[in-house]
Amino acid sequence: MSATGSDFLQLDPASAPGRGLTTWLADALRAAIMDGRLAAGTTLPATRVLAADLGVSRGVVVEAYQRLKDEGMASARHGVGTIIAEGLCSLGGTSPPDPSLAQGTPPLDTPWPRRWRAGADIDLSPGVPDLAGFPRAAWLRAERAVLARASAADLGYGDPRGSDRLRRELANWLARTRGLRADPENMIIVTGVAQALALLAQWLRASGRTDVAVEDPGSRGTRDELAYWGLRPVPVGVDEHGLRTDELARSGARAAILTPAHQFPTGVVLAPHRRRGLLDWAAATEGLVIEDDYDAEYRYDRTPVPAIQASAPDRVAYAGSTSKTLAPGLRLGWLIPPRALLADLVAAKHASDLGSPALPQLVLAQLIATGELEQHIRLVRKRQRGRRDALLAAMREHLPQARVQGVAAGLHLLITFPALDGRVDDTELAERIGQAGVLVHPLSRHRSRPEAPGLVLGYAVHTTDQLRDAVRRIAGAVAGSDRRTGGSGRALFVGAPVAAGGGA
Amino acid sequence: MSATGSDFLQLDPASAPGRGLTTWLADALRAAIMDGRLAAGTTLPATRVLAADLGVSRGVVVEAYQRLKDEGMASARHGVGTIIAEGLCSLGGTSPPDPSLAQGTPPLDTPWPRRWRAGADIDLSPGVPDLAGFPRAAWLRAERAVLARASAADLGYGDPRGSDRLRRELANWLARTRGLRADPENMIIVTGVAQALALLAQWLRASGRTDVAVEDPGSRGTRDELAYWGLRPVPVGVDEHGLRTDELARSGARAAILTPAHQFPTGVVLAPHRRRGLLDWAAATEGLVIEDDYDAEYRYDRTPVPAIQASAPDRVAYAGSTSKTLAPGLRLGWLIPPRALLADLVAAKHASDLGSPALPQLVLAQLIATGELEQHIRLVRKRQRGRRDALLAAMREHLPQARVQGVAAGLHLLITFPALDGRVDDTELAERIGQAGVLVHPLSRHRSRPEAPGLVLGYAVHTTDQLRDAVRRIAGAVAGSDRRTGGSGRALFVGAPVAAGGGA
Repeated sequence: MSATGSDFLQLDPASAPGRGLTTWLADALRAAIMDGRLAAGTTLPATRVLAADLGVSRGVVVEAYQRLKDEGMASARHGVGTIIAEGLCSLGGTSPPDPSLAQGTPPLDTPWPRRWRAGADIDLSPGVPDLAGFPRAAWLRAERAVLARASAADLGYGDPRGSDRLRRELANWLARTRGLRADPENMIIVTGVAQALALLAQWLRASGRTDVAVEDPGSRGTRDELAYWGLRPVPVGVDEHGLRTDELARSGARAAILTPAHQFPTGVVLAPHRRRGLLDWAAATEGLVIEDDYDAEYRYDRTPVPAIQASAPDRVAYAGSTSKTLAPGLRLGWLIPPRALLADLVAAKHASDLGSPALPQLVLAQLIATGELEQHIRLVRKRQRGRRDALLAAMREHLPQARVQGVAAGLHLLITFPALDGRVDDTELAERIGQAGVLVHPLSRHRSRPEAPGLVLGYAVHTTDQLRDAVRRIAGAVAGSDRRTGGSGRALFVGAPVAAGGGA
Repeated sequence: MSATGSDFLQLDPASAPGRGLTTWLADALRAAIMDGRLAAGTTLPATRVLAADLGVSRGVVVEAYQRLKDEGMASARHGVGTIIAEGLCSLGGTSPPDPSLAQGTPPLDTPWPRRWRAGADIDLSPGVPDLAGFPRAAWLRAERAVLARASAADLGYGDPRGSDRLRRELANWLARTRGLRADPENMIIVTGVAQALALLAQWLRASGRTDVAVEDPGSRGTRDELAYWGLRPVPVGVDEHGLRTDELARSGARAAILTPAHQFPTGVVLAPHRRRGLLDWAAATEGLVIEDDYDAEYRYDRTPVPAIQASAPDRVAYAGSTSKTLAPGLRLGWLIPPRALLADLVAAKHASDLGSPALPQLVLAQLIATGELEQHIRLVRKRQRGRRDALLAAMREHLPQARVQGVAAGLHLLITFPALDGRVDDTELAERIGQAGVLVHPLSRHRSRPEAPGLVLGYAVHTTDQLRDAVRRIAGAVAGSDRRTGGSGRALFVGAPVAAGGGA
């Protein structure tokens, strides 16, 4: 049996997405095998024939076939061609997947309509580090060292708090880099800050503390997650000094989640008097502070502010992860709670998954012990600073009107347009910018109360040339919006100079 | 500054536990560093001196020092010795850890008193595979291949259901090995069966189905986990045909968790008429069957029974993992729910941890695609069969009275002593066996209603010689119990012959 031409694939090269023709073709071939259009034993069309039929280069087809072979779905037979393997299960009888799931439930902080993403050449969504820079060689070297000496106990059912080796390494690391007061015994390794929050949410709910103060603007993913666990997010304003602790005191909430080192999305650092206000609130209400230290490792111009946990370890649950230093896909983080909460949180962790996966924990411990994590962060910090500087320089040139915040740290910054307040909706503005091929988050997406329009610009994953290009396109779209609303198209905005955003 | 002698360690070699003198010494040194007894810059005693002081071999001290150096806690300085590193955090001020946590919350199915574990040379606890056989080289090779081609998207925030590559591989794998009807779109990669159960428990609770039938005897960990999530485990009896579906029908529960391929702990395979009874119950009550297929890969004498999910994919939530084929520490499993539950379960997964760690998923996909997982399982199955056969032969010789169940599959079997019913408590019997240096689970530990005394014997991690030795010691302890209760000491028990336990 032979498949001829490309009809069985039912696909159109014009619909191929940006992720590459090879992936697109390999996916289509796999789908055809899985739903029975390509039966076991079928010979695939010659690469030349299929390439001509689809109007793609022959290399694309060769590579797609190779992937199927690598995956064991096809094999090469000399003189015959590429044959679909036996023993694969056809799923012809199953119903089609739910399309809302097929595209993937959006992750925290990046739930973006597909149609915008699809058209954008430059994606400035915040929240993702430069994954092309993931230290693959160091990771693999560390994994080799770990596997060489891992004991049976390391691979068995372990302590639900996680590997004691990693907890010891992290306690030292966090003491050194974040000023933390951390005891390895009082630490839970979690699958990311999202899980830390899920465990804390279960504790809060069981304690009857259903109202939880959240930053506004702030992470939408955090609000959604709290709601899932039966809690009520109470928005508390953020200004150029960070969370408004006067509003917090009036909110009645006895728990608060915040990002003091580099507020998401405004980028402000919590000011000293606000830190005091926060700790006063926690002492007066016996409140719990949940400190999400999500990108504190990237601080460019001064030494980092120590974590709040260092000032009040019995009031603060500290959560961090490798999502911004290494990769979100690792799902590897830590939770350092007030000691009184430890037993309940360990019980929640045990009832959730018994404990986190062992090997990545041991690899991270090794990367800390050898100094390679620190080396990697230093390298990335340097690269990030260069990107931030290029972005700022381009904005000084093309968007001198914008007010900039959050430049001192992190992987994103915020620009606001106070003078456009009431005249331009930032969601529309982001849509116009999207039409110019640049994906940015409108500030309003992250807040529950109206304020001046703004845009959140993540600069972690692009070269300086791309960032300059992006700013030119943003400036064009902003000028267009401005003209449409009767402005002059330049020098319209008031606010702090680009390089010295308030509180950043 | 120099530390002399061993006083600063405050330890006694006689108290060193079985895990090895090196680990014990390295842990003690780390503790001394962490709580400030060994300050930064301190020179450790010469290895010869400390070894003599502690009465251990010099190699133990050399190796312990080397570990500290590997971890970056110490460094060698030529002509001086081993120096405690700078920049480590002293925790002198923190309170001592909660001892109940320090020893680790016990994992599912192995919560065993420490004092028994400590004395046992041969641990026959069920539930853990032979971790010394973990395929380290294949895992590392697969990880190298994965890192070589992982895209930024692979390392980013992904689909909460998990890697689509792994889901496709697993759908084929499970169709082939377990007869499953699995669509990759309708599968959630989870951090083990415990997480699958946690997600389902949240759905059951939200649906108001708080009564959940569980096997009795059955997994204690499962019962505890259900209770954590606010559900009520309703024990339903297990006989030589598996779960008693007549009792299930009378229980009123509209959800049931079971281990049909190799019941835990009795080892029976659910009989065909009980499978029918189970599906009739599910159809009549719109009940949910949760199928925990925990060690179905190990079937020694016949072809495996297909999963129940294959008969009723709209009534069965199927859960499996790599805990018994590779290692529990991987925390890597899958959940294939009735399609109607998918969206709610994906929401629960997203709110719990956003999705499972990416790299181990891609490595597993690679191991399936290359055939190395299958090869590994085939090898382990052969080794396990040899161990099982040795255990059975030894029991025929030394324990001819015991009735044996669950020999056809899995990593453990059950022996019961019907003739001792009412005369011997199996917890006491297990304690006597423990005093003889063999750790076994008494059957009563896993059930809520009294029945004939029994012992669960896991044979996965020991050589045939060790297993023969264990049986001799068990037989001695049983004979002792028997004499104490007035028996003759041999040929006392009635029941099926050792090699043909009922229903196994």
